[in-house]
Amino acid sequence: MKSRLGIALIGMGRMGLIHLKNCMMSPRTDVKWVIRNNIVEAEKYLMNYNLPIKYTSPDRYTDVLNDPSVDAVIIASSTDTHEDFINRSLQAGKHIFCEKPITSNIDTTKQCYDLAEKFDKHLFCAFHRRFDPSLKILKDKLDRKVLGDPRLVKISSHDVTAPPIDYYRNNKGGILTDSTIHDLDLVRWLINSNPASINISETSFNPEVAKYDSELVLVTIKFKNGAMCVIDNGRQATFGYDQRTEVLCDKGVLKVRNKSANLFTMSTSDKSTVSGIDLCFTQRYAQAYQNELEHFLDVLQGKCRLEVNKEDILEVYKLIEAGRRSIDLKTPVNLNTD
Amino acid sequence: MKSRLGIALIGMGRMGLIHLKNCMMSPRTDVKWVIRNNIVEAEKYLMNYNLPIKYTSPDRYTDVLNDPSVDAVIIASSTDTHEDFINRSLQAGKHIFCEKPITSNIDTTKQCYDLAEKFDKHLFCAFHRRFDPSLKILKDKLDRKVLGDPRLVKISSHDVTAPPIDYYRNNKGGILTDSTIHDLDLVRWLINSNPASINISETSFNPEVAKYDSELVLVTIKFKNGAMCVIDNGRQATFGYDQRTEVLCDKGVLKVRNKSANLFTMSTSDKSTVSGIDLCFTQRYAQAYQNELEHFLDVLQGKCRLEVNKEDILEVYKLIEAGRRSIDLKTPVNLNTD
Amino acid sequence: MKSRLGIALIGMGRMGLIHLKNCMMSPRTDVKWVIRNNIVEAEKYLMNYNLPIKYTSPDRYTDVLNDPSVDAVIIASSTDTHEDFINRSLQAGKHIFCEKPITSNIDTTKQCYDLAEKFDKHLFCAFHRRFDPSLKILKDKLDRKVLGDPRLVKISSHDVTAPPIDYYRNNKGGILTDSTIHDLDLVRWLINSNPASINISETSFNPEVAKYDSELVLVTIKFKNGAMCVIDNGRQATFGYDQRTEVLCDKGVLKVRNKSANLFTMSTSDKSTVSGIDLCFTQRYAQAYQNELEHFLDVLQGKCRLEVNKEDILEVYKLIEAGRRSIDLKTPVNLNTD
Amino acid sequence: MKSRLGIALIGMGRMGLIHLKNCMMSPRTDVKWVIRNNIVEAEKYLMNYNLPIKYTSPDRYTDVLNDPSVDAVIIASSTDTHEDFINRSLQAGKHIFCEKPITSNIDTTKQCYDLAEKFDKHLFCAFHRRFDPSLKILKDKLDRKVLGDPRLVKISSHDVTAPPIDYYRNNKGGILTDSTIHDLDLVRWLINSNPASINISETSFNPEVAKYDSELVLVTIKFKNGAMCVIDNGRQATFGYDQRTEVLCDKGVLKVRNKSANLFTMSTSDKSTVSGIDLCFTQRYAQAYQNELEHFLDVLQGKCRLEVNKEDILEVYKLIEAGRRSIDLKTPVNLNTD
Repeated sequence: MKSRLGIALIGMGRMGLIHLKNCMMSPRTDVKWVIRNNIVEAEKYLMNYNLPIKYTSPDRYTDVLNDPSVDAVIIASSTDTHEDFINRSLQAGKHIFCEKPITSNIDTTKQCYDLAEKFDKHLFCAFHRRFDPSLKILKDKLDRKVLGDPRLVKISSHDVTAPPIDYYRNNKGGILTDSTIHDLDLVRWLINSNPASINISETSFNPEVAKYDSELVLVTIKFKNGAMCVIDNGRQATFGYDQRTEVLCDKGVLKVRNKSANLFTMSTSDKSTVSGIDLCFTQRYAQAYQNELEHFLDVLQGKCRLEVNKEDILEVYKLIEAGRRSIDLKTPVNLNTD
Repeated sequence: MKSRLGIALIGMGRMGLIHLKNCMMSPRTDVKWVIRNNIVEAEKYLMNYNLPIKYTSPDRYTDVLNDPSVDAVIIASSTDTHEDFINRSLQAGKHIFCEKPITSNIDTTKQCYDLAEKFDKHLFCAFHRRFDPSLKILKDKLDRKVLGDPRLVKISSHDVTAPPIDYYRNNKGGILTDSTIHDLDLVRWLINSNPASINISETSFNPEVAKYDSELVLVTIKFKNGAMCVIDNGRQATFGYDQRTEVLCDKGVLKVRNKSANLFTMSTSDKSTVSGIDLCFTQRYAQAYQNELEHFLDVLQGKCRLEVNKEDILEVYKLIEAGRRSIDLKTPVNLNTD
Repeated sequence: MKSRLGIALIGMGRMGLIHLKNCMMSPRTDVKWVIRNNIVEAEKYLMNYNLPIKYTSPDRYTDVLNDPSVDAVIIASSTDTHEDFINRSLQAGKHIFCEKPITSNIDTTKQCYDLAEKFDKHLFCAFHRRFDPSLKILKDKLDRKVLGDPRLVKISSHDVTAPPIDYYRNNKGGILTDSTIHDLDLVRWLINSNPASINISETSFNPEVAKYDSELVLVTIKFKNGAMCVIDNGRQATFGYDQRTEVLCDKGVLKVRNKSANLFTMSTSDKSTVSGIDLCFTQRYAQAYQNELEHFLDVLQGKCRLEVNKEDILEVYKLIEAGRRSIDLKTPVNLNTD
Repeated sequence: MKSRLGIALIGMGRMGLIHLKNCMMSPRTDVKWVIRNNIVEAEKYLMNYNLPIKYTSPDRYTDVLNDPSVDAVIIASSTDTHEDFINRSLQAGKHIFCEKPITSNIDTTKQCYDLAEKFDKHLFCAFHRRFDPSLKILKDKLDRKVLGDPRLVKISSHDVTAPPIDYYRNNKGGILTDSTIHDLDLVRWLINSNPASINISETSFNPEVAKYDSELVLVTIKFKNGAMCVIDNGRQATFGYDQRTEVLCDKGVLKVRNKSANLFTMSTSDKSTVSGIDLCFTQRYAQAYQNELEHFLDVLQGKCRLEVNKEDILEVYKLIEAGRRSIDLKTPVNLNTD
């Protein structure tokens, strides 16, 4: 594979721009195209940064697919557009870096992976947490059994600001596909075992939200290897982007704590005031977003195997479906994974 | 009531000695008797510390009850002896400070409280966490709604060293009565609401223990006021006496963190090593044990009302019984509290 | 030596009461007498705690010295009384535990130690920081050269509340004998080397204080082994009892941090508020005061050698005198220690 | 001034590349030229990142000066080249962003500023710490006297790895111009007052270094407004890039702490191991480097006044010269600033 890979970027929202900047900073990529509905904004952005990149709208995506200098596509557009972009890109022989979720249900997701296999192209679901330096250290300690076997994984994961009501109304997957999916992938990855059962309790503090979705879920999982997991995942933490992981093992505990927004402290006789934690995922996971891109480039250049694979994604989907049943039936649900 | 209260102390195990020392340091108490099975050891201890205190064995407890200088009894003997000591002491007109649990089941516990009401004496169940300075600050912020309403209470509570197998074999109440009872009382106190449902998942990593008891429980509670609670409570944390409480509210989060064993840090280029957390409840809750004694003395001297009352204890027992059913049925259980 | 040592305690101020309580909690001591100017208060205190201890006033100290059950004297009275109590007690064959400073100048201090040698009794200057568990760990790492040789010792040491103006007017030793003496002993003990030179800059923010004493001193010391030391020592930190020690070594850094007053934290989107640090030396060094008593008892029972000895005290005094010259001359002063 | 400014960058070492990347990420700059001795490497770098930028060697700098699209020059080459680049650039009508020090002595530095005034161009000395978000918060609290007046500023500033012996041999300014200059500018900026006197003690642990320079300096400063300052500044901390600032005020303390390298913690019964602090200035001050560029652009676009001005630089130089005399004379030196 070439030392510099031609990239087409679909979507210029928050995640799209993060990937664009990371591509600009990487000597291994050469962004050829950006695809955006609002091409006036796309043009303006590229001029502002003096970037020698072509732009077009999604309806002219064929032009991008026909460009032989494009080796891979980064998909950061809305979830409902993923399936079509994935299928067409694979058929045109492009590798794919795709924001989660691949698609909004397990069947179409499986079809995408089957197609990737058929065309022998990589389909990478960008579960960024796996590429966070702190979580990678934790994973490494677990794999090397530095503190023995894991007994209990605790994940706290809360967004700062709840989306507007309209968002819930139109959002099919709900909090499980939006957010809990990251926690479920994280614990599977850490534990290296499949779940035996899952129980989810949920609530909404805003009665309007309760009509469509949950604002807070408490997930309890029993793994086949005997470990347990508890996740508290919510739409709104107000005190910051809460992202903590903790693994109690036979011989101690491994943790990844929250990130402070800055390094300032003020102390008086009655209290010390320190900065709060980061309010935004773009700050907390800045390094993870760079690393996941570099991982994808490594895979394309044959330096390593893809870390987030088809089986991972399908298992997480099964877990989400079992979780949905658990919410509906108000009881734990067993998983028939072998 | 007198400015110095005559005290009889039953039991000279770890908790008994803590209470004895706290009495020695309090100018409001005058310890008159200690009651211990091994009276040779009792005599030796009193001589060692040069304490002008009488001692006797449980079978001569009537002598203590007949001593009019004894105003109150502190019961720190094994749980199976509580009921008898409570009943006889109340009938002899003594107030009672009793280690948890009052008795091992809800019916006899209720009878004890009924008797206390009949004889108009105080029966204090020493839930020490309510008297911990840090938890009291947290409770005060919640009561004054400094950060709005509580949404999620998270309690982590783990002992350091698991008891020997024999302990489990002969222990009727199991982890719920031994340990989770503290967490359940704590969350009820903090939230000021009664539970609507409880779900408990449990496991044991040691198959021998699994025959008799759980080593780890994950408790999920929904409260009537909409708040949720998740507790992870275990027999063995190995990294220290893990005692953390966290309350996510509308406008932020309140926390009580673990206590470091000391203030030393060593840093090299790759890591900083700080002291672990306290390994023992006697260190972590030293101030709470002093404060609960002072509270009991305040109540006896008419300065305030008893903070842990009959209703609290009976509600916690109902919650434990529902939790046991949840474990047996492997499903959430609703509570019919009104 | 006996397993329980008879103690006479002189002074019932803050430090006196700390020592009294620690004696009560130690099975190796038997407090026989307390000596206090205000004997009405002394009697009241002993009755309050139900303590079987005799009391008297300083003018009847001969009665105490004539009591053969008294093995050792704890001197916690005002500095100007130390010399007389020490001399008479040594002549009566009693060992001595004395609050710092032994006396207010080097000559009389030396005479006290000479007398102790003559009568073969122990004279212990209670430099409590040497017995603080965290500082002891730091000292142990230094002695074992875990991070190589020390290069720079940094000590921050600030009281919380400045004394009233009258205090400065009548206080001969000033901040150096009151407070910096602890820091100077600490660094000598840690470094295991004698100073080659000392420089002290000082200031007072209150012009009234400036007439008599310094409110803040910055001490720079070069040691013969090449290590350096910087101390900032002040009368008033307002944010708490600031007591930090840090040693930069060849291979890393060793630290003792401040102690938090409690374990509570409150976080909102813009900040986290944690408890301030302890406001009082009685809290910060509670364990050190217990340990220094136990050390003294160990020495008396022949279990170990006295850790704070004559040479230590005289060297610290030389350093204070050189420091005074440095303040007067506004220049560094060399020390002729061999 | 234009909304996008043409930039020429001199030097592509560590700092040069940081500025290049920050320019690439800023829509307000358009890098036109890079100037580097090794033009083969320069070309390679630009190709690697697909950057449409011209490159040349210093001997062809006139081509750059003649390019009217170049509005400003960023000088990140070695200190001995600064004076010539500054003079020629100013004469060609370019604004200047210059790494510290402007030149290696006060006279030539003053001449540079005089020339900038003559040609009415901005000459910005990039003291990055002033643009660090945490230090800016601290400065803001001081300016608003949130905790009253400052009493003592403490700065700890240590590099991680000492340079090779050759470096010391050829380095004219020594540690004061290399490193302490940042601390001196920082405290002047924070305190908003000029120094009355300075004392510097120094040492070197490596006797070879001692022939040319100091490895560790302890700086004590008295300010005219009564505040004091102590700085410990060293070539090698081994445990990480130590960068701490602390200001004791009338009513409390303000601090900027060190930055952790990551968020991972591992705890066992005897200790907790957390990540060390950042090892590199590029990590610690990444945001400051971005902010100082944005500040320079703001100044050029007339949005604010230059924050680091001629007077600041000349005062810092006077302080360095007084500090050098203090080291030579081994005594404090007064400053005749009015």
